[in-house]
Amino acid sequence: MNFASDNWSGAHPAINESIARESAGMAAAYGASALDKAVEKRFDELFERKVAVFFVGTGTAANALAFASVNRPGGVVMCHREAHVIEDECGAPEFFTHGARMAPVDGADGKIDPLNLERELSRFKPDFVHAGQPMAVSISQPGEAGTLYSRSEVEAIAAITHARGLTLHMDGARFANALSATDMSPAEMTWKLGVDILSFGATKNGCWCAEAIVVFDPEKASQFPYIRKRGAQLFSKTRFVAAQLTAYLEDGLWLRLAAHSNRMADHLRDGLDASDNARQAWPTKSNEVFAIIGRTKAEALRAAGAVFYDWNVPHGMHEILREGEMLARLVTSWSTEQTDVEEFLRNLGTAD
Amino acid sequence: MNFASDNWSGAHPAINESIARESAGMAAAYGASALDKAVEKRFDELFERKVAVFFVGTGTAANALAFASVNRPGGVVMCHREAHVIEDECGAPEFFTHGARMAPVDGADGKIDPLNLERELSRFKPDFVHAGQPMAVSISQPGEAGTLYSRSEVEAIAAITHARGLTLHMDGARFANALSATDMSPAEMTWKLGVDILSFGATKNGCWCAEAIVVFDPEKASQFPYIRKRGAQLFSKTRFVAAQLTAYLEDGLWLRLAAHSNRMADHLRDGLDASDNARQAWPTKSNEVFAIIGRTKAEALRAAGAVFYDWNVPHGMHEILREGEMLARLVTSWSTEQTDVEEFLRNLGTAD
Amino acid sequence: MNFASDNWSGAHPAINESIARESAGMAAAYGASALDKAVEKRFDELFERKVAVFFVGTGTAANALAFASVNRPGGVVMCHREAHVIEDECGAPEFFTHGARMAPVDGADGKIDPLNLERELSRFKPDFVHAGQPMAVSISQPGEAGTLYSRSEVEAIAAITHARGLTLHMDGARFANALSATDMSPAEMTWKLGVDILSFGATKNGCWCAEAIVVFDPEKASQFPYIRKRGAQLFSKTRFVAAQLTAYLEDGLWLRLAAHSNRMADHLRDGLDASDNARQAWPTKSNEVFAIIGRTKAEALRAAGAVFYDWNVPHGMHEILREGEMLARLVTSWSTEQTDVEEFLRNLGTAD
Amino acid sequence: MNFASDNWSGAHPAINESIARESAGMAAAYGASALDKAVEKRFDELFERKVAVFFVGTGTAANALAFASVNRPGGVVMCHREAHVIEDECGAPEFFTHGARMAPVDGADGKIDPLNLERELSRFKPDFVHAGQPMAVSISQPGEAGTLYSRSEVEAIAAITHARGLTLHMDGARFANALSATDMSPAEMTWKLGVDILSFGATKNGCWCAEAIVVFDPEKASQFPYIRKRGAQLFSKTRFVAAQLTAYLEDGLWLRLAAHSNRMADHLRDGLDASDNARQAWPTKSNEVFAIIGRTKAEALRAAGAVFYDWNVPHGMHEILREGEMLARLVTSWSTEQTDVEEFLRNLGTAD
Repeated sequence: MNFASDNWSGAHPAINESIARESAGMAAAYGASALDKAVEKRFDELFERKVAVFFVGTGTAANALAFASVNRPGGVVMCHREAHVIEDECGAPEFFTHGARMAPVDGADGKIDPLNLERELSRFKPDFVHAGQPMAVSISQPGEAGTLYSRSEVEAIAAITHARGLTLHMDGARFANALSATDMSPAEMTWKLGVDILSFGATKNGCWCAEAIVVFDPEKASQFPYIRKRGAQLFSKTRFVAAQLTAYLEDGLWLRLAAHSNRMADHLRDGLDASDNARQAWPTKSNEVFAIIGRTKAEALRAAGAVFYDWNVPHGMHEILREGEMLARLVTSWSTEQTDVEEFLRNLGTAD
Repeated sequence: MNFASDNWSGAHPAINESIARESAGMAAAYGASALDKAVEKRFDELFERKVAVFFVGTGTAANALAFASVNRPGGVVMCHREAHVIEDECGAPEFFTHGARMAPVDGADGKIDPLNLERELSRFKPDFVHAGQPMAVSISQPGEAGTLYSRSEVEAIAAITHARGLTLHMDGARFANALSATDMSPAEMTWKLGVDILSFGATKNGCWCAEAIVVFDPEKASQFPYIRKRGAQLFSKTRFVAAQLTAYLEDGLWLRLAAHSNRMADHLRDGLDASDNARQAWPTKSNEVFAIIGRTKAEALRAAGAVFYDWNVPHGMHEILREGEMLARLVTSWSTEQTDVEEFLRNLGTAD
Repeated sequence: MNFASDNWSGAHPAINESIARESAGMAAAYGASALDKAVEKRFDELFERKVAVFFVGTGTAANALAFASVNRPGGVVMCHREAHVIEDECGAPEFFTHGARMAPVDGADGKIDPLNLERELSRFKPDFVHAGQPMAVSISQPGEAGTLYSRSEVEAIAAITHARGLTLHMDGARFANALSATDMSPAEMTWKLGVDILSFGATKNGCWCAEAIVVFDPEKASQFPYIRKRGAQLFSKTRFVAAQLTAYLEDGLWLRLAAHSNRMADHLRDGLDASDNARQAWPTKSNEVFAIIGRTKAEALRAAGAVFYDWNVPHGMHEILREGEMLARLVTSWSTEQTDVEEFLRNLGTAD
Repeated sequence: MNFASDNWSGAHPAINESIARESAGMAAAYGASALDKAVEKRFDELFERKVAVFFVGTGTAANALAFASVNRPGGVVMCHREAHVIEDECGAPEFFTHGARMAPVDGADGKIDPLNLERELSRFKPDFVHAGQPMAVSISQPGEAGTLYSRSEVEAIAAITHARGLTLHMDGARFANALSATDMSPAEMTWKLGVDILSFGATKNGCWCAEAIVVFDPEKASQFPYIRKRGAQLFSKTRFVAAQLTAYLEDGLWLRLAAHSNRMADHLRDGLDASDNARQAWPTKSNEVFAIIGRTKAEALRAAGAVFYDWNVPHGMHEILREGEMLARLVTSWSTEQTDVEEFLRNLGTAD
């Protein structure tokens, strides 16, 4: 009954097999091997256009270096107030950009409200140097609140972003889960809606350590090799990342794993809805579920072996908790077993 | 009728005389002259304790280097959502701290609400590395909204700050105006209430270029000389800053200038209250006044020669403006003449 | 005949098996799993004392974060003029330390000359803020020139380093090769000689991606978790690094692999000494060999399938090349086969 | 007999008068006043072309922000091994560029040797990301060694610099002294020889605090306003810098002051040449003189009231000092009196 995080899962056997298969012989280091090049081409196909793709080691690196690549002095990145880049990356985005500000934009359901985005941006007057200068807007798909931006929501944000000459970044740490929860293709979810740079995560969904930054206009990535190396993110044996991604993208493995993960989350959501002892804090899609549970019940669940995190209540939502309740985050993964979900729900019960 | 900013004022004759007087002969550079030392001692007297004081060139430098001196990796500074360090320093605080985050805390009247501060800080769990680590709380006295923290408000914030081992910083860009608007002494407004570091501003109030960072526990300032030099803020001919401050602090000049400035603002406030063509956006003290004026009237005032800035409406307060109105900031200074205020109010009129 | 770099080798089967074995089930992320803890303990045993150890993804990260952990404003790290941290890390050490300077110290054979070190350090006068402040001395063992510091050489450098209160860092990207080329134990080569922090590399010697920073005084590492996370080097699934290191350190695998690699380099060295068509540029130990070869011969070797890099001639040594000659670096690895060396030497020949 | 530094001098009366004159009334802050604009135009005339000019507070800021404006990830600035930007700015250039490396180039007389420059640059292969990427070459005119680059020397360096698409920066902290020691005009000494950015110093030569960055191609300065503000170098009351520069540049005051200063140094040089008790360490022009003096004699001079600094012997020149000797730097300034020089030389004597 472990719903701590999809980061707690291991690697899918197909990933390990690919790593082992690619381990023999010499291959050019630092991204120059045939395998690296083949995977880069695979990304072109996946996104239905020529892209520039850069492997890095962590999702935090992907986000931080993406911002670094569009950095401006006094730069400002607009993101949701509870965005992962603000709350969970220990200042890496600010660090790698030498102090760009992650400016919080309010919005329900963990998503930027376009009206608030417009308002925040309008605070910046041209040539008013004191306020700094916006450089990017960043959205998570799905977000840390487990919700998804709709097609039209991304389009609205992209329109505002591009009207000011800014870059639209998408944090896709759980990109496969987002795709799997919608009917969109990788291209449809990204550049066709106006996304300029994608942090493409594979680690959480069955890899060991495989993150990539996808720049949809390769001409804008000319300095990226230096940014990555200076950022200590250029692996020497990059083929081991490439080996993971080869297997990950082969025959739709990545989407099958994400679909499983989402399905397990659906079970959890259904169970919460059916229970009198807990409720969803807000409706989610993908593989993160937020549950409001009485503290006593939560302790009982943990005593029975359930693992999950207490979660900070989003800004301005403190009223969702009644006295004695807590907010729990439940995450499923590619390796979550249905019996685990069932056992959890059984322990949760339908009424105390 | 120039109410653009106290930065638009020049320097008081006494300041210029002191500069000219101290210009003769050789004196040790980089802060080692007898005059520098004498002014340092003057700060000890002013604050009724041994302090460490460092001259810098701008208020932005004072704030940014103050944070740099208490920096931690992944550091977070709590400040009001409309704080100068967030909105008006082009990312300098983040830059000089290599990416510390200026975390916005909501609160009415441009002041941190202690309850919200407590809530924000409680989001940081010990050893939860992902969120980063709070390092300081920063308040402005007076703030950009022209309001003042009361004695008990500062004490409440200091208690929360110190309970977590953090540093309390006060942005005193208009410190003299704050003192003059209350009955507190420099010591009473700062370390006696729990302030650890003060950005002491003199430029706006009659100097040319004289800002100082006052560290109330000198033992915590051992690395500051290197931080300042690396930050390109160690003037070679520091005696010219010292010369300004000598005159500034002599015989209470600084407080007289601030009192005048505040008094001019009082006139403005009274005039706004008496007018049907404008109103105070919120009550202020010190030398900043925020007025809601109809756009047509504002244009007429400007056509008549009045100078003032449009101001961004604080977050969550958009409803204060009715259709066709704008928010104006009116700042008085040591050199504002009463006739200017009167002319402005006459032009404003009492009813259209 | 591939002597491009040990980075071009893949991973040893035992490493892959361990990764596969550890891939099942859920395990705490971000370094908190049982396996992570077990490997940390393994480092205590290896170094015969309690150490703090932090896994990171690249050798560049290991060095850069090591410096960041002892950073001072205006900090200066003394290192050899051809040190990897100067020449081959794209400014990462400077970047992660917000601009600490990597100060070049001259010395023969790619090693810091203690006399020059003393001289460089004596340029820094106490409290003379303009010059900045030394914070560390960094040596590579073995260095990029393939040479090794002797016991007494490290002791001499450590004495100078510690006399000034500085930290001694050892870049051990090829630490196993260094150990294998001497009779020293891990403890004897490091803290027993005065080394304070070690970059422990395993990637080049049979792992995929396994680097660690070893801090010999764990009390000095309290901020390191934040430094690593802010630096985007905290892997979520750290157990995959731990899995590599478990196998790497088991039953002396790492030393056997390094011994093989060094032996292959010995063959190369012997062959060069015996050939009239090339000569060693300087005597090396460990697994890097530097050969001076005529350009025509070098082209012929490459045409025959040999892979190796042109190498920059060290500062002040341009006279080692005669007209028409080039400097080649030949690196062996755990996977180099003796037949490859033999074929290379056969192609090199004994006389043209 | 104070030859410590031209930084120890005060301000010329004409500077003070100008400051006092410009102190009345309101004027737009942050560089937008009429006076600011007039001085900017004055720089156009001075350099015989349209330039972009930015006032800052210190010479260190001028250099550091100049580099920041041409920064690249992994950037490298080539400068002389004893350059001020390496030895005397506490890492500010590295700090403001987020870790660009100041790469030392050897050369006699404190000047970059073009051959060595070429050699250093040739170490950087296109697209070899590990080494970083050169971005600028920086020369000082005059340099910290008191020597001057000739016209052809600058041209040679500019040719190498521009052949690689790099920026040529000139540190002109004592620019007036350089001009005064040659027959070149400001334009001839800078952009006509290929200089792209100039740090124009006025502080040492009779101002209080007046430094400027001159960008000869204004189109390359579009981000500079943000770089300066983020760097905390945008003074609010910029008119006080403008007031200094107005007087400084009026009627050739600056060149007269520098000529005096250089003349005083000539006296010192002549005196040293005539004395048996000291000798010039190397021939200088401009207002810095380097003398080798016996330690006993140096102490006697100091006992008699002479003030001067011990100076670090340049790299590779330790043999210039015989046993018991020290290297002294003697700096003259606009306010040095001939009687001071004479008294110093009398105390030095012609033979012991």
